[in-house]
Amino acid sequence: MQASRYLIVVAGGSGTRMGTSVPKQFLPLGGKAVLQISIEKFLDAFDGDIRVVTVLPEDHIRAWKDYCYENTFTCRQSLVCGGFTRFHSVRNALEKVPRGCLVAVHDAVRPMVTQELIRELFDAAGTYGAAVPAIPCADTVRCLSADDSGLLVPIPDRELVRSELFAVQTPQVFSSDLLKDAYSLPYDTGFTDDASVVQTYLRRKNDTPAGEQVHKVVYIKGDRLNFKLTTPDDLAIAKLLTEK
Amino acid sequence: MQASRYLIVVAGGSGTRMGTSVPKQFLPLGGKAVLQISIEKFLDAFDGDIRVVTVLPEDHIRAWKDYCYENTFTCRQSLVCGGFTRFHSVRNALEKVPRGCLVAVHDAVRPMVTQELIRELFDAAGTYGAAVPAIPCADTVRCLSADDSGLLVPIPDRELVRSELFAVQTPQVFSSDLLKDAYSLPYDTGFTDDASVVQTYLRRKNDTPAGEQVHKVVYIKGDRLNFKLTTPDDLAIAKLLTEK
Repeated sequence: MQASRYLIVVAGGSGTRMGTSVPKQFLPLGGKAVLQISIEKFLDAFDGDIRVVTVLPEDHIRAWKDYCYENTFTCRQSLVCGGFTRFHSVRNALEKVPRGCLVAVHDAVRPMVTQELIRELFDAAGTYGAAVPAIPCADTVRCLSADDSGLLVPIPDRELVRSELFAVQTPQVFSSDLLKDAYSLPYDTGFTDDASVVQTYLRRKNDTPAGEQVHKVVYIKGDRLNFKLTTPDDLAIAKLLTEK
Repeated sequence: MQASRYLIVVAGGSGTRMGTSVPKQFLPLGGKAVLQISIEKFLDAFDGDIRVVTVLPEDHIRAWKDYCYENTFTCRQSLVCGGFTRFHSVRNALEKVPRGCLVAVHDAVRPMVTQELIRELFDAAGTYGAAVPAIPCADTVRCLSADDSGLLVPIPDRELVRSELFAVQTPQVFSSDLLKDAYSLPYDTGFTDDASVVQTYLRRKNDTPAGEQVHKVVYIKGDRLNFKLTTPDDLAIAKLLTEK
């Protein structure tokens, strides 16, 4: 039997970097709010057969309910208040997700994600327990830190090999058992995405004598256009791409 | 006395990723070729007091000469044929650059560079020997490689700390003595930019008993808009930004 599917869509932004008064998840793109577009990609990928948990800052929940009502946007959706960090937001949302299913965690501000990528990630997560999209790094990336005199210089013995470097995206899809277990870890500032939480959990589990590898995190080729809307330039590009 | 200034502008692209028949350095942006815009930023930064070495694929040298003639674009410019890789192209160009001066190496397809950043980098290179622009990485970046079964998975014990990760840009500015000495190294596939050549050279030199640190590579805050025109989307963004 096919496991049930869940989507946790994280819409935590306040719009400061975007320079708008409207939080970026509510900005319009081709006539719809970015958050609606993101959710619809998942609904369309599975003919509506996915439950949605939307995480919003407490102050924005009313506005989102109004938007859904006014735009007759209906789906099986739970609303959850965001926490202090992204980690706490996802942990809150996981309370609405049962064991024994597959759950995607997606940034609301990545509306350019494709149905194909979503389905591919759910398939891989069904097989391996965790699937994450990543694209090769286009830039030369270097590890730098301030030296004694405050100058930014290379960190010794921390050379990176460009061909090994990948930029990680969302949606990240997991067995809900694995993700819920991983989110029982105490918060760590190194948790920049869900895969970092799961990888830390798996590493610690395998360090114990009884540890055995049931799940692993696999990376799937993402899409350069599945970028995060962060600045006004990003929104301008998304508009160009949506309207073409 | 102020050291003389040189610019090596590397225009090696063939336009394959851009999907155009015109190489991207010749694409028009606000009525001028991208390559001309890039060179003019350096001329304007120093009231014309900089010599230019333009590196082009052999097939494009005629077209660039014609363009300069037709558009009355004149500056103290040497033309050099590109080599097999970027490393070989820069090494060819360095033959036109004397010792005892400061030399910038710049990607032709970064026309959005500002005069302020250029001057700041020349100042810092005058003090430290090498100055490179870098911006904090916006993405979560991870080291991945294929496992035995061909799946892309995290490389063990290669965790990256996001706050230490920076994306490196050009122009990279150097004492010409340092850069010419560094380019005497044999080619290595790890040389993805000029700073990587110089850092390798300085590391080896300091490994020898007589080694002493005269120069160091310092990183200066770059500019998010100083991006490389690689895809049609990049060009569309550059047009939006140029015309606004």
